[in-house]
Amino acid sequence: MLREEISGTDHQNADTAVTLGRLATPALLLDKYRLDRNLARLSSRMAERGIVLRPHMKTAKSIDVARRVYPSEPGPITVSTLAEAEYFARHGFRDMTYAVGLAPHTAERAMRLRKAGVDLKVLLDSPEQARMLGAVGLAAGVTPTAFIEIDCDGHRGGLTTSDPKLIAVAAALSEAGVKLAGILTHAGESYSLFTPESLVAAAENERAVAIAAAGALRGAGHECPIVSVGSTPTAHFAEDLTGVTEMRAGVYMFFDLVMHGVGVCTTDDIAISVLTTVIGTKPEKGWILVDAGWMALSRDRGTAAQRVDQGYGLVCDVAGKVYPDLIVSQASQEHGILAIRPGSAHAMPNLPIGAKVRIFPNHACATASQHELYNVVSADSDAIEARWPRMHGW
Amino acid sequence: MLREEISGTDHQNADTAVTLGRLATPALLLDKYRLDRNLARLSSRMAERGIVLRPHMKTAKSIDVARRVYPSEPGPITVSTLAEAEYFARHGFRDMTYAVGLAPHTAERAMRLRKAGVDLKVLLDSPEQARMLGAVGLAAGVTPTAFIEIDCDGHRGGLTTSDPKLIAVAAALSEAGVKLAGILTHAGESYSLFTPESLVAAAENERAVAIAAAGALRGAGHECPIVSVGSTPTAHFAEDLTGVTEMRAGVYMFFDLVMHGVGVCTTDDIAISVLTTVIGTKPEKGWILVDAGWMALSRDRGTAAQRVDQGYGLVCDVAGKVYPDLIVSQASQEHGILAIRPGSAHAMPNLPIGAKVRIFPNHACATASQHELYNVVSADSDAIEARWPRMHGW
Repeated sequence: MLREEISGTDHQNADTAVTLGRLATPALLLDKYRLDRNLARLSSRMAERGIVLRPHMKTAKSIDVARRVYPSEPGPITVSTLAEAEYFARHGFRDMTYAVGLAPHTAERAMRLRKAGVDLKVLLDSPEQARMLGAVGLAAGVTPTAFIEIDCDGHRGGLTTSDPKLIAVAAALSEAGVKLAGILTHAGESYSLFTPESLVAAAENERAVAIAAAGALRGAGHECPIVSVGSTPTAHFAEDLTGVTEMRAGVYMFFDLVMHGVGVCTTDDIAISVLTTVIGTKPEKGWILVDAGWMALSRDRGTAAQRVDQGYGLVCDVAGKVYPDLIVSQASQEHGILAIRPGSAHAMPNLPIGAKVRIFPNHACATASQHELYNVVSADSDAIEARWPRMHGW
Repeated sequence: MLREEISGTDHQNADTAVTLGRLATPALLLDKYRLDRNLARLSSRMAERGIVLRPHMKTAKSIDVARRVYPSEPGPITVSTLAEAEYFARHGFRDMTYAVGLAPHTAERAMRLRKAGVDLKVLLDSPEQARMLGAVGLAAGVTPTAFIEIDCDGHRGGLTTSDPKLIAVAAALSEAGVKLAGILTHAGESYSLFTPESLVAAAENERAVAIAAAGALRGAGHECPIVSVGSTPTAHFAEDLTGVTEMRAGVYMFFDLVMHGVGVCTTDDIAISVLTTVIGTKPEKGWILVDAGWMALSRDRGTAAQRVDQGYGLVCDVAGKVYPDLIVSQASQEHGILAIRPGSAHAMPNLPIGAKVRIFPNHACATASQHELYNVVSADSDAIEARWPRMHGW
């Protein structure tokens, strides 16, 4: 009997038609106006330059967000997991790049998607992976398509342009019956920069390495149709993209405090925030306690290495106006501690128990991943317009 | 048509009857033998001292784990969200403490559970909360039960024993028609210690503050039936618990590298790990790339402040044997970089693409929360014995 009486659900905020003021906290908010503006900004920038934009869905992981990117019909996307690829395939997407290095079990699963009609391109950087992929494709009865990963700044994986393995991988792909999609590189080190000049230089380096790699492959007789680069900072600061055919970026949809610290956006561009409620005060310490801890904000401390450390996030009022120098200074699982940044002359606002505030996150990908859904809001309204579920897992 | 052809699911590893070697990665593993041993260790310790153990379910968030704690019938538990309270209530639990400070919307939701027959005790530390709770209880037609939160070490919320508000809160509860459950404190600062002597002292301080607070309330004429203390370190190091009636702890079920650094467990006690696959190598940098990034491991860097920094986790072979000084040195969303700890004389093991390893996490609560389910294994078998779902959200 009690099972029916207890109306709770394992999923947050399953009831509909609430306002911001009545939303149970902590809850993830997505400002649709800012989302659309961020999407338009990069889409226009790439359209002006004749570059295909292949948005990375790893940040949003939501078909509803993807539909804001592509209102009329599905277009090219990048994914970070095969669960994402399967999810977007079920929603009609066909042109995808899985931008994580290939292993035998992911090759098999990726080829099942190709068999089902999805043009899923995979990523590798060794002759061993090329041969393995060829064998998996043969067994599945499909022709795989793969990018060779290029390392442009020492950030993670991939081959340098001068590595003799580059031509060896292309040869192994050809021998194994795998189609070469092109080369793919990611200027991951751009996240640690913070001046326009250095970002322009990082974008130019990303381009230069990419076209050199494509040139090396073409010089060795391999077709290299796609020259794919991308990171949110370089996408917004690249001045010349000659020779590049496509751009990948993900966090630009939402932006966050790390991107603000890099200099790619203002706080007025940050489209996601965590709504939270005051649950205690500790005036003798200058603390206000809220019900958003690291479970709601994530453990990401990406701004700790930047010029301005934002703690676990920057605090705004319910309408999204920043309280100067008020940050989440500490976080445990379900508790956040708000405090004025050390050295600031600003005073703590008066926020009694039950008051609500919003937190701009350090890292949109990490914070959004702590939540089941987006509560969609617009700047000029108190209503939750929609609830957009996120997919998760692998 | 394609929708049916694409067999993937939004949830990881939904197929059953696989072995460890064939499990899709990244995946969360739970060693049932170690879990049971960890549970027995603290249960015995508390039973010997005549102390009620009220396990904190915020780490496991799983009815299946709770059933290992209470194989015959549900017992007392602690929860960190009302979604947890509702979940465990649906599974038959009745005696719960919601150990996060109360706000108006959580008070209303908590009273719905009381109305449904759940003995849910809440937590507060101000006369304002006491009056608000009384009003919410009256409106719901139930008598609320509340703990007063005591601050024993400056970690987070709560009142110090000498704060005159302590008696004022008790008086406000009484006037508002709320039953005083007792006092509750948490030695959160014990997580930063690492010697047995300091842990014994932290436990004694936690006890001393708790009994002083209970004494102050009793001296003012208030009943204080429950004297509740707890943290995993102090639970394992307390030598004298005279005057304490119950102990709370959560991460002791799984343990982790932070608890190892504090000195509460060995790596052989760590019951959860993340299975991952090698997806690339970068021999010139001494790197091996795996498909467990921060999405699978969490962004928690809790060992960064300890004497031994374990990066994003310590690497073991598939059987759980630690590779000396091999850690996850960097993590992006779906990539981990394995490297030998700086200064170590150990060599990188030979791990080709496709090889699988396990990662012990820094913080079990954070890492487990990145996953939908536990793949249950035992030390002596390659089989996935069971899949235990986790609940999530608020």
